[in-house]
Amino acid sequence: MSGKKLHFGIIGAGRIGRVHANSLAFQIPEAEIVSVFDVNREAAGRLAADFNIPNIAGTVDDILGDKRIEAVAICSSTDTHADMIAWSAQAGKHIFCEKPISYTLKQIDGALEAVEKAGVKLQIGFNRRFDTNYARVRKAVADGEIGKPCLVHIVSRDPLPPLISFVKVSGGMFLDMMIHDFDMARFLTGDEVEEVYAAAGVMADPAIGEVGDVDTAIVTLHFRGGAIGTIDNSRKAVFGYDQRVEILGTEGKIASENRFPNQVVVSTGKAVYSDLPLNFFMDRYTDSFAEELRQFTRAVLEDRPVPVTGADSRVPVIMALAARKSYDEHRPVKLVEVSA
Amino acid sequence: MSGKKLHFGIIGAGRIGRVHANSLAFQIPEAEIVSVFDVNREAAGRLAADFNIPNIAGTVDDILGDKRIEAVAICSSTDTHADMIAWSAQAGKHIFCEKPISYTLKQIDGALEAVEKAGVKLQIGFNRRFDTNYARVRKAVADGEIGKPCLVHIVSRDPLPPLISFVKVSGGMFLDMMIHDFDMARFLTGDEVEEVYAAAGVMADPAIGEVGDVDTAIVTLHFRGGAIGTIDNSRKAVFGYDQRVEILGTEGKIASENRFPNQVVVSTGKAVYSDLPLNFFMDRYTDSFAEELRQFTRAVLEDRPVPVTGADSRVPVIMALAARKSYDEHRPVKLVEVSA
Amino acid sequence: MSGKKLHFGIIGAGRIGRVHANSLAFQIPEAEIVSVFDVNREAAGRLAADFNIPNIAGTVDDILGDKRIEAVAICSSTDTHADMIAWSAQAGKHIFCEKPISYTLKQIDGALEAVEKAGVKLQIGFNRRFDTNYARVRKAVADGEIGKPCLVHIVSRDPLPPLISFVKVSGGMFLDMMIHDFDMARFLTGDEVEEVYAAAGVMADPAIGEVGDVDTAIVTLHFRGGAIGTIDNSRKAVFGYDQRVEILGTEGKIASENRFPNQVVVSTGKAVYSDLPLNFFMDRYTDSFAEELRQFTRAVLEDRPVPVTGADSRVPVIMALAARKSYDEHRPVKLVEVSA
Amino acid sequence: MSGKKLHFGIIGAGRIGRVHANSLAFQIPEAEIVSVFDVNREAAGRLAADFNIPNIAGTVDDILGDKRIEAVAICSSTDTHADMIAWSAQAGKHIFCEKPISYTLKQIDGALEAVEKAGVKLQIGFNRRFDTNYARVRKAVADGEIGKPCLVHIVSRDPLPPLISFVKVSGGMFLDMMIHDFDMARFLTGDEVEEVYAAAGVMADPAIGEVGDVDTAIVTLHFRGGAIGTIDNSRKAVFGYDQRVEILGTEGKIASENRFPNQVVVSTGKAVYSDLPLNFFMDRYTDSFAEELRQFTRAVLEDRPVPVTGADSRVPVIMALAARKSYDEHRPVKLVEVSA
Repeated sequence: MSGKKLHFGIIGAGRIGRVHANSLAFQIPEAEIVSVFDVNREAAGRLAADFNIPNIAGTVDDILGDKRIEAVAICSSTDTHADMIAWSAQAGKHIFCEKPISYTLKQIDGALEAVEKAGVKLQIGFNRRFDTNYARVRKAVADGEIGKPCLVHIVSRDPLPPLISFVKVSGGMFLDMMIHDFDMARFLTGDEVEEVYAAAGVMADPAIGEVGDVDTAIVTLHFRGGAIGTIDNSRKAVFGYDQRVEILGTEGKIASENRFPNQVVVSTGKAVYSDLPLNFFMDRYTDSFAEELRQFTRAVLEDRPVPVTGADSRVPVIMALAARKSYDEHRPVKLVEVSA
Repeated sequence: MSGKKLHFGIIGAGRIGRVHANSLAFQIPEAEIVSVFDVNREAAGRLAADFNIPNIAGTVDDILGDKRIEAVAICSSTDTHADMIAWSAQAGKHIFCEKPISYTLKQIDGALEAVEKAGVKLQIGFNRRFDTNYARVRKAVADGEIGKPCLVHIVSRDPLPPLISFVKVSGGMFLDMMIHDFDMARFLTGDEVEEVYAAAGVMADPAIGEVGDVDTAIVTLHFRGGAIGTIDNSRKAVFGYDQRVEILGTEGKIASENRFPNQVVVSTGKAVYSDLPLNFFMDRYTDSFAEELRQFTRAVLEDRPVPVTGADSRVPVIMALAARKSYDEHRPVKLVEVSA
Repeated sequence: MSGKKLHFGIIGAGRIGRVHANSLAFQIPEAEIVSVFDVNREAAGRLAADFNIPNIAGTVDDILGDKRIEAVAICSSTDTHADMIAWSAQAGKHIFCEKPISYTLKQIDGALEAVEKAGVKLQIGFNRRFDTNYARVRKAVADGEIGKPCLVHIVSRDPLPPLISFVKVSGGMFLDMMIHDFDMARFLTGDEVEEVYAAAGVMADPAIGEVGDVDTAIVTLHFRGGAIGTIDNSRKAVFGYDQRVEILGTEGKIASENRFPNQVVVSTGKAVYSDLPLNFFMDRYTDSFAEELRQFTRAVLEDRPVPVTGADSRVPVIMALAARKSYDEHRPVKLVEVSA
Repeated sequence: MSGKKLHFGIIGAGRIGRVHANSLAFQIPEAEIVSVFDVNREAAGRLAADFNIPNIAGTVDDILGDKRIEAVAICSSTDTHADMIAWSAQAGKHIFCEKPISYTLKQIDGALEAVEKAGVKLQIGFNRRFDTNYARVRKAVADGEIGKPCLVHIVSRDPLPPLISFVKVSGGMFLDMMIHDFDMARFLTGDEVEEVYAAAGVMADPAIGEVGDVDTAIVTLHFRGGAIGTIDNSRKAVFGYDQRVEILGTEGKIASENRFPNQVVVSTGKAVYSDLPLNFFMDRYTDSFAEELRQFTRAVLEDRPVPVTGADSRVPVIMALAARKSYDEHRPVKLVEVSA
C-alpha cells in the first residue's frame, strides 16, 4: 500500500462531497486530500475535520493554484460544473466531476474543449458502471455470454419524489434522473441509441406536473446495432430503491436484482416475507462511489485512460433532450435531431 | 361430484383439441364429451379412443344437430372459427372457442352478432387469465393491494421460432403471439389501452423477416386511466418459455416469475445453478387450460356470465392491428384509428 | 396410448383410495379399474360413481377372486396391510400397497414371504421418491454431480398436528411421519444408515405428550459410507408443509426448496412477500402420487422390477424403531440392535 | 462526528490486526489508534504506515504503560490472549480481544478474574453477532416474531481446509471453528445449551484425520428451554463460505441465506445460474468486524455494558469441550460434565 500518492483538492463539501471525501480519505490508499473548498466555509471546515484534511481553501483559486494538488474532485452544484472543469483544466489539474457537466451541449462542449486543450484527464461520476451488478452484466455482454443483445430493459425507480424546489431546478426527470439510465443503456450494451420514444405522465405527485415535469416514464430505445429496449423510471416506489436491468440476447438472458439489507426470510401463518430492499442510492451504491474514484486515481497515477470519458458525459444529455422532445411532440425522435 | 352434467361436442382433434378433451374427460366431473369431429377422421378416432368418447361425427352438422350436445369446444383452425361460432350459435349451442375468433373485425363482429342473436354463451380461450400467477396479480390489482397501477410490464417469449410455413399464415407476431399479451394488459389492469407504439425487428430468425414478419418487439401501451406499460415479445428465448408480468402501483409492486420443473439448486465450484424453466405453453399452462374449461362448464350449468366474453376477443385484435400499423408507420397509433 | 392395459382392483375407498383411483382412472392410460371394495359400502359406491368403476365388490374375496383383476391397490387402514398383501399374493395379484406394511417386523416379514413365494410384484407407496425435486436430487447424487455425500439434511414438517385420536393409533411420530424421511435418507444417498440418535420433545401440542408421543424431533443419521446427516420433523409449521432436503458432497451442494401455489412477489412499503407454500401432502405430492402408480403399472405390464421394493418397506421401520429406542434410552442406537 | 475519542493500542499486527486497524482508523470516527505492537516489528511498522498510527511500540509494556491509551485491541496469537487480557486489565485498559480467550477454562477464569478485579470492560470478538443477517434473526426471536424456538439449525462451512500446520495447533474443529456456532446458538435463541451429541468424521482431507482432528461434524444441541437443534460444520464447501441459520418457532420460521458478490442471474440454453457466494469470512463478515469494534468503542465512551461479555467467551469453550468428549465417547454429554 506504499508508493506514489495522488493529491486531491475537493471543490464542494455537500452531501456528495462527503461521499467522495470518505472514499479518498479512507478507502483509497493511493489518494490524499490536500485541501477542500466550499462557498459555505463552515461546511468545508466540518469536512476537513472529519476527514483530516489539512487545508481549508478560501477560494477556488486557492485550490487551482496549489502546486501540490494534482487532481480535483468537483462536487459543487451542477450549474458550476462546466466552468469548474474549464478552470481546473487550464490550471493543469486532472478532473473527477459529478454528472452531468451541464444541461446544454454548448456548455459541455466548451468544457470538453478546455480539457482536450490542456491534455488533462477527465472522468464523469457515472458511478453505476462500477456497481458489481452492472459490471457483471456488462462483462456478460462483452464476453458474449448471452450472445448478441436483442431486448434491453433498465428499471430505475426512486423511493419517493424529491422536493418541488429541487424539481424546479433539476432540469426535469429525463435530465436529472434518467441520465444515469441513458448511460447504462450505452455502457451495458456497448452500443449507441439512435432514436427514442417517450411515454410519460404524472402519477406520483401532482405538484411535479404543476411545475411542468413528469414523474413516471417509459422510454423506448432503438439501438444502432438493431436491439430495442426500454428505460422505466418512477419517482415513487414505496418499497425502496428499485434498480434492475435485464438483457435478452440471442444465446441467453441476464438479469440483475435489487440489493437487500439482509438475506433473511420469515415465514408465518400469514406470509413469507423479507425486509425491504436498500432504500436509496447512498445505501445501494456505496461501493461504486468508492470504486469510481479508485479507478480514476489509479488511471491518473499510471497514466492510463479513465473508465468514463468526457464523450460519455455528452451523449446521455443528448438522449435526455431527445426523450423530452419525444414526450413533448408525442412521436419518436432521432438523436441527430437534437445534437445536430 | 354427482349432479347435472354439461354435454360437449368437440370440433377439431388436433393438439389443442387433445388438451381440451383431456380436461373435459378427466379433470372436470361436470363435463361429458358426447362426440368429436375432425376433417381428419383418423385423428377424431384416436381422440375418441383415448378419451372414451362414444361418437365420432362424420360432419360438423352431426355435432350441431345432436340434441344431446349442449356446448361445443371449437378447436379447429383459426380461419374456421368465425363460421363455426356462427353455426354453433344458430344451432343453440353454448360455445367455447380457441382464440382468436378471426384476424378481421368484420368476421369477429359477424360471429358475435350471431351469438347475441341466439342468446348462447361464448367464451374465448384466453387461458392465461386462469393461470395462478396471473390470477394472483389480477386479484392484487383489483383489491388495491398495490394501489393504482402506474407502470405495467408484460414479458412473453417463446423458446424457439415457429416454422416459416406457420409464420406465413399466422397473421404475424402481433396477431398470433402478442394477442395473449394484449388480453393480459386489459385483464391485469381492468383498464383499456388507447394508444400503442411498436418497436420491432428481426433478431431471432432472418427467414421470418423474409416473409414480412418480425420476431422481436416492444409495444408501449398508453392506458385510458393514465398508466403506461410495455409488452415484450420474442420468438426465441433459448432457456425456455419466458412468461412474466410486473406492475408498479402507487402503493407497491407485484411481479410474477417463471415456473420451473423443480425447486432444486446445485452449488459447485463453478456456479450456483438450477434447471431451465418450463419449456413451453403445454407445460406452463397445463392447469389454466383445464381451469378455463371448468369455469366455462360451471358458468353454463349455473347460467352465470362466462369469465372471458366475446368483447374480450375483439379488443386484442384491434390492439394487434394498431401495433402493426404503428410498426409500419413508425409512430404512435390510437386504437380508434383501426377500429373506427 | 392404445395397447395392453393393467386391470386393477382397489381395496379401500378412503382419502388415499380416492387419490389412487383418480390417478388410475384419469392419468394412467395403461390402467383400468375393474372393481372397488371398502368396508363402508357407501364410500365404495361414491368412488365407483366418480371414477366410472363398473363393479362394487361386496367382499375382499370378490376382488381377489376376480379373474380380470391383475393388480390390487391396497388403500385400507394400516393394520390390515400385512394380511391384504399376503392374501393378494396368494391370489396371484400384483400389489401396490400404501406405506407402511406394518409396524412390526414379524408382520412385514410374513407379508414379504408370501409375496416372494407367489412371485408377484409388490411396490410400497413411498411416493416422495417420485417427486420431481427428490428425483432430481437423487439423480445428482447418483451421477456424481456433487461428489460423494458428506452431510445430509432432510426437513419434513406438517402444517398442523393430527387429531389425538389418530396419534394414539399412529404408531408414533417416528413410525407414522418420519418413516417417509427414513426412506428418503436411503433413496437420496443410495446408502444405508447404521446408527441413529434421536433428540425429541413435545413443543407443538401438549396433548401429544400426554399420550406418550413426541411432536418435534431431530434424528442424527450415521451412514455406512461415512456420511452423517439429520432428519428434522415437526408436527406444526404454521406457514404450511415444509419439505426440503440438502446434501453437501465433496464436489458441491444440492438443495431443494418448498413448492408454492404461485410465483408472485409483492413489495409494499412494509415488506416484500409471497403467499404461503403449498399446505399439505395432497397439494404438494399430487404429481408424485400419480407417478408412483404409473411406474408400478408399467413395471408390471413390461415385467420389469418395481421402483420401490418390499425390502424398501422393511428398513424404514427398523430405522423408526431404532430412533424411538434412542429417544427412550437417550443414547445412539445401532440398527442391528432392533433388527437382530 | 466530533466529540470525545477513545484512544487505542493495538497488540498484534497480523491479518486480524489489520482488519481491526482498518475499522478503527477509517470506519469509527470515535476511535483513534495511538500505538501498535507486534513481536514482528516490521509488521507493526507496515501497519502503522498504512493506518497513520503515530507510534510503534517496542514492547507490550510500552502499550500498557502509555497513559494516553484507554483501550487495547488484542490481536496476537491465541495462546497469548489470557495473559494479555490479565496484563491489560491490571494496567487499567479496556479490552477488546479476539476469540477465544483460551482453550482451557482455567486460563479463561484467570483472565476474567483479572478483568473483574480491575473493573475494566472486556469484549470478545464474536463478530457474527453483528452481521446484519444474524442480528435480524436474533431480533425476530427476541421480538417473538416466530413464537418460541423449537428447532434451531446453524450451518457453517469453510470453502477449503486449513493447512495441516494450523490444524495441529488450532485446538481442533470444535474449538477453533465451531466455537463461533456455539456462540450463535446462545445468541440467536437467548437460551443455554445443556447437552450435546457430536457426530463427526474425516471427509474433506485425510491428513486432518491423521493429526487426530475431524473435518465434518453435526452436533445436536439440547437447549434448557426445551428446543433442540444442530450445528453443521464442514472444512470444505467447494462453492464458498456457507453461513446460514434457520429457526422454526411455534409461530413461524426464520432463515438466513448466504451473501453473494452480485444479484445477477444468467439463463442460457443449459442452465439458470449465478456466481458463487462470497468466498470466506474476510468478504462475508467485513461489516460485522467494523460493527463489533464500533459498539465496543461506544460502550466504553458512554460507560454502557459491552455487547459480548467475558461470560460469553467462556460458555462456547465448555460447549466445544463437551462436543469433543461426546465425539470421543460416542454418547450425549452434558455441559456440566466438563465445566464442573
